[in-house]
Amino acid sequence: MSRNICVYLNFLTEAHREKIQKAAARAGFQVRFFVKGQFEAARDWVQTCEILYSNSPRLLKASPAALRWYCCSSAGVDPYCRDVSLFPTPDCMLTNSNVYGATIAEHVVMVLLMMLRRMPEYEKIMAGRSWSPSDPLSPIRSIRDNTFTILGTGDIGSHVASSLKGLGAAKVTGLCRSGYSSNPVWDEVLPISALDDVLPRTKNLVMALPSTPETVGILSRARIARLPSDAYLVNVGRGTAIDQEALADALNSGALAGAALDVMVPEPLPQDHPLWETKNLILTPHVSGNMTLGYTCDANVDAFCADLENYAAGRPLAGLVDRSRGY
Amino acid sequence: MSRNICVYLNFLTEAHREKIQKAAARAGFQVRFFVKGQFEAARDWVQTCEILYSNSPRLLKASPAALRWYCCSSAGVDPYCRDVSLFPTPDCMLTNSNVYGATIAEHVVMVLLMMLRRMPEYEKIMAGRSWSPSDPLSPIRSIRDNTFTILGTGDIGSHVASSLKGLGAAKVTGLCRSGYSSNPVWDEVLPISALDDVLPRTKNLVMALPSTPETVGILSRARIARLPSDAYLVNVGRGTAIDQEALADALNSGALAGAALDVMVPEPLPQDHPLWETKNLILTPHVSGNMTLGYTCDANVDAFCADLENYAAGRPLAGLVDRSRGY
Repeated sequence: MSRNICVYLNFLTEAHREKIQKAAARAGFQVRFFVKGQFEAARDWVQTCEILYSNSPRLLKASPAALRWYCCSSAGVDPYCRDVSLFPTPDCMLTNSNVYGATIAEHVVMVLLMMLRRMPEYEKIMAGRSWSPSDPLSPIRSIRDNTFTILGTGDIGSHVASSLKGLGAAKVTGLCRSGYSSNPVWDEVLPISALDDVLPRTKNLVMALPSTPETVGILSRARIARLPSDAYLVNVGRGTAIDQEALADALNSGALAGAALDVMVPEPLPQDHPLWETKNLILTPHVSGNMTLGYTCDANVDAFCADLENYAAGRPLAGLVDRSRGY
Repeated sequence: MSRNICVYLNFLTEAHREKIQKAAARAGFQVRFFVKGQFEAARDWVQTCEILYSNSPRLLKASPAALRWYCCSSAGVDPYCRDVSLFPTPDCMLTNSNVYGATIAEHVVMVLLMMLRRMPEYEKIMAGRSWSPSDPLSPIRSIRDNTFTILGTGDIGSHVASSLKGLGAAKVTGLCRSGYSSNPVWDEVLPISALDDVLPRTKNLVMALPSTPETVGILSRARIARLPSDAYLVNVGRGTAIDQEALADALNSGALAGAALDVMVPEPLPQDHPLWETKNLILTPHVSGNMTLGYTCDANVDAFCADLENYAAGRPLAGLVDRSRGY
């Protein structure tokens, strides 16, 4: 009996499919591709498969007990870790795709510069066909010689740190569970337990955490209050990490200078949600890791092909997620 | 008789004044400081001076024949090069302050990322409390692996090149009169005469040119037409460099993907100017070299103090402008 792979993804180009075909052939697998609108055909084919490469909880739930590996094309896999019933068996492996750091880092640099350089205020001035602010703007600030605290030192956090250093940042501090990173880009890496001490000296806080029981609500009302009133906040991890009501209060009262959220709870935000009217807040609709960037799509496919080689050789998978830990 | 310096500037802090005082004392000079609202007092004092550090054509014009050196606190000195009658004598030296590269490079990175990542479209979507575009947006692009053409390889152009390389740009091409730069940041430096050949392969064009007879209108209608329709344009030099009517036509017709102008003709733009209604255009009110950035102000004062030491020692001034050339 043949060994089969099901790929149910929308972003693949012809070149990506060829690359996957070749990697599958080398590993002794047959592969079929499906896109949006072909769910039923994908569900039929997956019944014959031991590998599924997709980002569809629904298709995973319809997979057979013979499925050994689910390769998720996204980085955040909290829906899969929360709901064990999605998997056909408890020992079906889950990998995620840690390939979004490059594009998310550019989003973070963009929104940090927009806040530091007061771009939303200038946009408002120019929209009114005016040239000067009615009140003088506070001084602009710079990435150069500035300091940054980054929650999460994985693929995303490390790319953000590297971009900021490339633009002349003076100091980039990373926080993660272990308090250790082998990546030389960090000026300092501390354990998450140091967060309360780090917040009062934080000028710019970037959050790039997965959603896990330990990170839900980690930026609580009490912790937001520990940030200086001229600090900026960016969240590109998961919306669950922040007490949104406390954040809105801090921004509206001026207890925090500004924030840029690409992730929120819930998504999309309902029409009457208070975040829409919060001051000094830049909102984007969960696009920082946009799959339209060729670089990201290429890296996603490359990571799957590399792990397929690992899988066929019986080696550990590079993207393996500890489902109990959540990342 | 004492040798005197007049400083007429608004951005100086107490620390800056002390630094200038000390440098002046070392060089055997007495210095007095004036700010906005003290023009008459400054004019009286400058009658006794051989050095003026300011950015006031009016005060320069009121200066005595004994003035030997006018240190201009801005980078662009086109008003001074255009009007020789501002100077008390033809051989009064003019220096400019090439210290804006760091802050202007951050502005360029910000607006490039906003265009590449389609931020103005997302801002519009979110302003309507919507989550998804009604039409799918074109794919976002990235600084990483992208290529850039920079007109002007001076302090500003070099800082822009360095920031883009720090963010993973694949290739940065500089163009300048000589076609040569000793700065290793450039992947390629070409003479301005190669511009027509370079434009068709330009994905992102950054203009950082002084206003001189040779640069006025350099981005003509014919040259705008040579740019690919998916190219982006940023101008942080002088508004005179671009045929604005041709640029508006190209943006409105989709012959060019987007532009970000921090400099225009005239400034401020009149209420009924067509640029206010031009599509895919980000306007900022000449703030890319904003003097509110501490780094820029510090560097400005440091450059003056260093040249004061040169002046006192009879050495050539580092910031000396060739008034006939215009920079």
